Amino acid sequence: MTVNPKEMSPYGIVLDLDIEGAVRGRLKNKTFVVKDIIDLEGYITGGGSPDWRAKQSPAVATAPVVKQLLEAGAWLKGKSCSDELACSLDGINPFFGTPLNTQLPDRIPGGSSSGSASAVAAGIVDFALGTDTVGSVRVPASYCGIYGFRPTHGIVSTRGVMPLGPSFDTVGWFACNAELLCAVGCVLIETRYGAGQVEKLGVLTSAFDLLAAEVAEPLKQHVDEMKRLFKSSSDIKLSRYSLDMAAAIFNIIRGCESWRIYGDWLQQAKPQLSEMVQARLSDGSHISPGEEAVAREAHHQLSDFIEELVAHAGVLCLPTTWTLPPEQSATPQALAENRMRNVLLTSLATIAGLPQVSLPVEIKPSVKMGLSLIGSRGTDLQLLDLAVMLEREHVSLGHMAPY
Amino acid sequence: MTVNPKEMSPYGIVLDLDIEGAVRGRLKNKTFVVKDIIDLEGYITGGGSPDWRAKQSPAVATAPVVKQLLEAGAWLKGKSCSDELACSLDGINPFFGTPLNTQLPDRIPGGSSSGSASAVAAGIVDFALGTDTVGSVRVPASYCGIYGFRPTHGIVSTRGVMPLGPSFDTVGWFACNAELLCAVGCVLIETRYGAGQVEKLGVLTSAFDLLAAEVAEPLKQHVDEMKRLFKSSSDIKLSRYSLDMAAAIFNIIRGCESWRIYGDWLQQAKPQLSEMVQARLSDGSHISPGEEAVAREAHHQLSDFIEELVAHAGVLCLPTTWTLPPEQSATPQALAENRMRNVLLTSLATIAGLPQVSLPVEIKPSVKMGLSLIGSRGTDLQLLDLAVMLEREHVSLGHMAPY
Repeated sequence: MTVNPKEMSPYGIVLDLDIEGAVRGRLKNKTFVVKDIIDLEGYITGGGSPDWRAKQSPAVATAPVVKQLLEAGAWLKGKSCSDELACSLDGINPFFGTPLNTQLPDRIPGGSSSGSASAVAAGIVDFALGTDTVGSVRVPASYCGIYGFRPTHGIVSTRGVMPLGPSFDTVGWFACNAELLCAVGCVLIETRYGAGQVEKLGVLTSAFDLLAAEVAEPLKQHVDEMKRLFKSSSDIKLSRYSLDMAAAIFNIIRGCESWRIYGDWLQQAKPQLSEMVQARLSDGSHISPGEEAVAREAHHQLSDFIEELVAHAGVLCLPTTWTLPPEQSATPQALAENRMRNVLLTSLATIAGLPQVSLPVEIKPSVKMGLSLIGSRGTDLQLLDLAVMLEREHVSLGHMAPY
Repeated sequence: MTVNPKEMSPYGIVLDLDIEGAVRGRLKNKTFVVKDIIDLEGYITGGGSPDWRAKQSPAVATAPVVKQLLEAGAWLKGKSCSDELACSLDGINPFFGTPLNTQLPDRIPGGSSSGSASAVAAGIVDFALGTDTVGSVRVPASYCGIYGFRPTHGIVSTRGVMPLGPSFDTVGWFACNAELLCAVGCVLIETRYGAGQVEKLGVLTSAFDLLAAEVAEPLKQHVDEMKRLFKSSSDIKLSRYSLDMAAAIFNIIRGCESWRIYGDWLQQAKPQLSEMVQARLSDGSHISPGEEAVAREAHHQLSDFIEELVAHAGVLCLPTTWTLPPEQSATPQALAENRMRNVLLTSLATIAGLPQVSLPVEIKPSVKMGLSLIGSRGTDLQLLDLAVMLEREHVSLGHMAPY
């Protein structure tokens, strides 16, 4: 690669800033960074790609989601590294490097919101904004051992945010503790339109069947502990094949949308991009309108079905990722296989547009990974409240390190 | 395994018979075997499973498809080994053994119509009946280097044939040359309701992208030769993700149907079955009615789409299997991965209920694999005529060994 990228700090900060928020507010004195696909007035939104960056003018407005945080008193410390065009789950950017995964320094941090996760996990900032289309917050949250949240589709503004697949794009966030994760939610989510307290836990058994042997037992023990904190729990049946179907539908629709957004640029500018990102952004060039229509019809059907499934379950518990992060030295093929397995887990909330919180639970000494809860549409704040309650109980049980 | 299976010949014959057909007819003096999931009056249909066999009475009638062949003068020489309950693509039966793949003796023959393929490839009989739900004729035809045909769904009677997934089940057949493959079709298919001559070839590029490196080049050379035999040819775009979707939809519906058929037996009789077959037959026990309904709706949509795609293409050319057969010593995991990749290719015709012919083409000296053509609904006889024409041209070009 011949371009000269902007320097990145070890923890994924690509631009240092120091913008103080309002003098008072719920997030007063809390520091944060935003993924560099989110607009900040006067700054170029780099999108993790030097060739993309080179063609952009400084943003004319700050994204509403950032404004909301500043108005709540939070303190913006910088912009964080994104995988190229937010199009990966690995956190490997060939131009900027790979932000450090502080809990497993030889492993990838996950992406595409890699810098946001790295900076939060390292304690550089208190929280961070990322984006999540099919796991770009959830996967790095799991890999770096921190909290991550993907909201109900449409509930948090995506204005001023570079799109990848608008049918699925969300702005999500990371924090080192559930209290703060929840506080950010209270600032960004104005409507609380879901039902009341969550009392039922549904365990998605087919998702746990996908776990690597190394993490299966410890994660299931956490689920057993968690069950005791709910009034009732049940095993929820959903075939592995429906997870396959969700992933396929997502891939078709996201592919078409990305191609409509970036196809002209790819064909005309012939930007330097990693081979994998180039291929994924070009997926849609091979998809016909008829094929997309089939996937969109199936999307509606499957989305409704998953929504009912979650409504029936209460909250749906599943692993965030199928195992711990791969080593940085993993082959492209191993990384592709790893992403594919993760997408089986992440596409469920993505297809249905449902909120999902990833809770870091200890798998072995000093190593955490994500255990996730998916809630019904619009129950984002209840889900975040639940995370706070679970953290409190879990810490008191000695299963989760307090921060 | 403690049961005592019936002996099997090296070429997959589990029952020797000698039933002469009518004194005259199109198939006079042509010998054949039928897969042991097809009824023959007075004989137990074994289904490849000793525990299944033990509970059965002799069949009270011969399946119409066998009667038609006998009435056309063909000579029934026996019943051939099936994978347990026709539920695999490997051709490994733990009770009967693995029929020999004469062209690659250390490799699996493919299944579930393993004995039928093995016997034809070895020259023991001229042709054989198998069944094909998602490749049980096509895969062993490719692996053993012979011709195989899956008809339009519903066009050939499946009465008296053990079901696996009735939405997709077909009776298909094998032969060592296209002439005979076609002659069997003329006997079994009474209606010729499709359009006239096929003049256009559509090459399904995403299917060729799935090929293993070892076979990709030789197979593509055969496609290039084949193109010259058509008036026009084009590349047909269909995303890999739609192949994923087809496979997922198939797995859900087939799973539900198999469970409705065999679930009681599995739960009550607790038969001895290989772990993989037990798992696949039980897939449906984890699938809810709502989940099945989503898949069935998607099935209709995708089926219509594929039908239009093929109508537009003329005939659609794709590899039958993604590579040569695995070694018999392959691990269960490697076999599972191999089946999964093959199902991406075989599920297209299965989902749309379309006819597919697999033509053996030389990949390296003395080793053939299948190159497939999918035709429009009801054009079975045109597709078989086309196979005859292609064999003739291909032999004259020196690319296909005459028999």
